[in-house]
Amino acid sequence: MQKRLTKLTNWLKENEIDMCFIQSKENVFYLTNFYTDPHERLMGLFLFKNTEPFFVCPQMEASQAKDAGWDYQIVGYGDHENPWDLIQQIVIKQKLSIQTLAIEKEVTSYSRVESLLQIIKPGQVVPVENILNELRVIKDEKEVSILKQAAELADYGVQVGINALKDGVSEMEVLATIEYELKKKGIREMSFSTMVLFGEKSGQPHGNPGGKMLSDGDFVLFDLGVILDGYCSDITRTFVYKSHTEQQRQIYETVLKAQLAALQASKAGNRIGELDSLARAIITDAGYGDYFPHRLGHGLGINVHEYPSMSHTNDEVLKEGMVYTIEPGIYIPTIGGVRIEDDVLITKNGFETLTKFSKEFTIIK
Amino acid sequence: MQKRLTKLTNWLKENEIDMCFIQSKENVFYLTNFYTDPHERLMGLFLFKNTEPFFVCPQMEASQAKDAGWDYQIVGYGDHENPWDLIQQIVIKQKLSIQTLAIEKEVTSYSRVESLLQIIKPGQVVPVENILNELRVIKDEKEVSILKQAAELADYGVQVGINALKDGVSEMEVLATIEYELKKKGIREMSFSTMVLFGEKSGQPHGNPGGKMLSDGDFVLFDLGVILDGYCSDITRTFVYKSHTEQQRQIYETVLKAQLAALQASKAGNRIGELDSLARAIITDAGYGDYFPHRLGHGLGINVHEYPSMSHTNDEVLKEGMVYTIEPGIYIPTIGGVRIEDDVLITKNGFETLTKFSKEFTIIK
Repeated sequence: MQKRLTKLTNWLKENEIDMCFIQSKENVFYLTNFYTDPHERLMGLFLFKNTEPFFVCPQMEASQAKDAGWDYQIVGYGDHENPWDLIQQIVIKQKLSIQTLAIEKEVTSYSRVESLLQIIKPGQVVPVENILNELRVIKDEKEVSILKQAAELADYGVQVGINALKDGVSEMEVLATIEYELKKKGIREMSFSTMVLFGEKSGQPHGNPGGKMLSDGDFVLFDLGVILDGYCSDITRTFVYKSHTEQQRQIYETVLKAQLAALQASKAGNRIGELDSLARAIITDAGYGDYFPHRLGHGLGINVHEYPSMSHTNDEVLKEGMVYTIEPGIYIPTIGGVRIEDDVLITKNGFETLTKFSKEFTIIK
Repeated sequence: MQKRLTKLTNWLKENEIDMCFIQSKENVFYLTNFYTDPHERLMGLFLFKNTEPFFVCPQMEASQAKDAGWDYQIVGYGDHENPWDLIQQIVIKQKLSIQTLAIEKEVTSYSRVESLLQIIKPGQVVPVENILNELRVIKDEKEVSILKQAAELADYGVQVGINALKDGVSEMEVLATIEYELKKKGIREMSFSTMVLFGEKSGQPHGNPGGKMLSDGDFVLFDLGVILDGYCSDITRTFVYKSHTEQQRQIYETVLKAQLAALQASKAGNRIGELDSLARAIITDAGYGDYFPHRLGHGLGINVHEYPSMSHTNDEVLKEGMVYTIEPGIYIPTIGGVRIEDDVLITKNGFETLTKFSKEFTIIK
């Protein structure tokens, strides 16, 4: 943690930023190792160019923050206190003069910024996202190790899902079984709402699982992931149940070809947008261009969707240590949809998929 | 929905607010009946004093928004488009002159407000939270009916948890069983991370379930809830396993007495803060005042924590149709903790608890 704090403090110094306020649970975790969700209560890290940082959190979480490894001052507040009053006292006591303030512009609420600006009157407010993205996008050894374990559990979730398939089982029953087996392995939270979609429902990229029952000839789409030690996994696999049409197979093979093309282009130095373009060209050439309405993927780490965006307009380049998803899809409302998604790590010499579940066209009997 | 939109539009007129931007998934749901989580993507409702509203969302969600019942314009955008450009075009086309803008100050990110302020240049920005809180805090018949069903499922979750208790079972195993049975009943999402805590771990108000195994003499604390049709439930029950000390029983009875006192004071016209004070006095008189570190409860509805805050400083009064939690607790690190929580509805003549699981001191054999 100290290394990350030092990097951020150096950035403050280099850019003559006097103070930095960080309050998203993800960035607080990244910088303090303290993982919690304070809901609407304020939890925030105050960092300075020239003085020691302090951490503000509800009193009842203070000891956990210390246990997580936060060695600097902790300002705990009760439900009856206004934390901004306590923050103001510190700012006054330390005689801090703040010209430039950095905040998480994209996730800090307007009212929190208002509260802060009543205490300090900076000349300008700048975003801290870019430097945090830059730090977080390159995963260190420990992070990669956790992401691999999280991906392994996602693979396991798909296998549990397949094992639960039978005539007449509902999407929700299969979903419940997957989450049950993962929770028994100690997973407290899925990285997003698990998706189990049968038949034409798989043709909705953001469909909701429900009481729909499995029938012969259905596509079966699983999209799921776990949060393990604060890090997310995210896998999608699609199967056919018992029988299939030629068109189902053709759609599947097209998506797979697109996915593999983007994977093969996953190499440090390559332009990120190129991966989306490669996959999209294959799907378009096969005549399904209108049925791939989303970007190729997204960065993966403490957030299930994080920087970078794997969209065709992204001109940034891949770097060793990046982890992201590749998940092209084709969705035809009347037939159903296929999406194939892996979590990918950029290595020194190329890439490694963290999710390893087979992608061969598979008929579940 | 139209009624809610009309009320909000009337508020705009009365307060001479030209435009209102609403983008939290909860308030969007409340006003459009469209329940979805667009993650980092923009989804927003634009309302006007003098012209029809429009709704902006990712293109792939547009048809679902229409199906949910949104009858006005929908502006769908692809992943490669900047939705703010589309919004700007509408604003320019309609020749809108915006002097006063209302936004969800507490949940709209600073950067979204910046984006909006680049398009329109209002003289002032005011919060829309108060009116939305005022509307949302009084639940209508349909909402109460859903909240009751959600509370019934929370009761069921507690029963499932009790049934899963046995020597050596872990917190996570019990948690997995509870969520499995609820998901089989069609619940897609719990209203927060389910809590199952054994022994002294129950002494942490925000403890994390893990591999701890159940032993004779442990407190067993369940805190859980479901999201049903967009509405949350939230119940806490605490039991003792097999045997108990006199002090455990005394702590339990103190919390129960405090909880019942606050319940009895739940009547339209009563001051909200009084409920917390009543419960707190009982706990303090019993010598446990230092071990009740949180407020009495919180409003409950589309958010699991919403307006009003049931804190002793709240001078507002209870009104018919309000739904909130009453959840006093005593937490002693070396012994464990007890919390008892119900979801409460203010009725014409008093109150009704929506959660109905027994609160008698119960030894699980």
